[in-house]
Amino acid sequence: MSNSEIERFINEISKLPGIGRRSAQRIGLHLLKNKETSLSPLLKSLNEAKINIIDCEKCGNLDIKSPCHICISVNRDLKTICVIEDVSDLWTFERIGFYNGMYHVLGGSLSAINGIGTDDITIKKLIERIINNNINEVILALSTTMEGQTTSHVIADKLENISNLEITRLAQGIPIGGEVHYLDENTLNAAFQSRKKIF
Amino acid sequence: MSNSEIERFINEISKLPGIGRRSAQRIGLHLLKNKETSLSPLLKSLNEAKINIIDCEKCGNLDIKSPCHICISVNRDLKTICVIEDVSDLWTFERIGFYNGMYHVLGGSLSAINGIGTDDITIKKLIERIINNNINEVILALSTTMEGQTTSHVIADKLENISNLEITRLAQGIPIGGEVHYLDENTLNAAFQSRKKIF
Repeated sequence: MSNSEIERFINEISKLPGIGRRSAQRIGLHLLKNKETSLSPLLKSLNEAKINIIDCEKCGNLDIKSPCHICISVNRDLKTICVIEDVSDLWTFERIGFYNGMYHVLGGSLSAINGIGTDDITIKKLIERIINNNINEVILALSTTMEGQTTSHVIADKLENISNLEITRLAQGIPIGGEVHYLDENTLNAAFQSRKKIF
Repeated sequence: MSNSEIERFINEISKLPGIGRRSAQRIGLHLLKNKETSLSPLLKSLNEAKINIIDCEKCGNLDIKSPCHICISVNRDLKTICVIEDVSDLWTFERIGFYNGMYHVLGGSLSAINGIGTDDITIKKLIERIINNNINEVILALSTTMEGQTTSHVIADKLENISNLEITRLAQGIPIGGEVHYLDENTLNAAFQSRKKIF
């Protein structure tokens, strides 16, 4: 691939998350071989997304309007906020459809290694939202990684003194379909500690 | 992801080869979160590629000009053509840099299952090139799959009667670094049949 124009093109594709050099070549070649049926529709879609899709000023969701369709919904519980790391978590919860409250997208989790501090994610905005809207419950739905758990603790600490606010986190335990002998000791320990009475 | 605009956007990305639903979500989210640093440069690059990168009328390579930089090179052997399935094969050979002749990109290989016949790939054009340019050697560098080998046979048959033309194919055997006890029997059989005398 001595041609620098093609090289730049493949290079740009390989910057996408999870796309290595070989995948980028494959995708690039596919696009160049199918300009009308693949490259043009992709260009159109990227252009439209760039113009139309924006951040929700309230919760951090992505939508074509701000506040987003969830924040302005009249059928949802306005007094519950589910705190998540990323918009993809929101998509997951909405796909499953068991949750009917509001969301708050942090935009990541605290990480000393990656240099992400409290000012880099929307913790301050979350606290303002909770106070200004008399929220009843905050559900911390963060990852059970070191970073996610640290973030949960920091947020819970900051919310501790707000009156009439319930702070919850997702249950930890054996995943459904999980086999006990394949699970790591941390998960088993958490499942043991939180065991529930049957009778 | 109840928002249809975002859904269409993710959907368009998931049409790329090797990109599943989850990768498409991840890429889409990355682009929307980094409009200036990721989405805009990608759009620019796709746009430029769409306009500037074209097929070489002679060999089927992709380049910003036709004939491509390989076909018009004065430092290459004009009398040898290496027949390949895809432009990515050309990129591989050029990256390694041991070959200094011309190429001919077939655009695939014959496949009854996928409905690809002799008119769907550039076999006819290859024969014309060989006759019109007094080619000395044709190297069939096709895959050692059923389809690739069928294509090799069909091409070799059609070229058999051209005088002063040498027809070769790549050697088959144990890949360098390959361990004998991990290799399949077809490869071992080919390696056995083509064994070379050391002394």
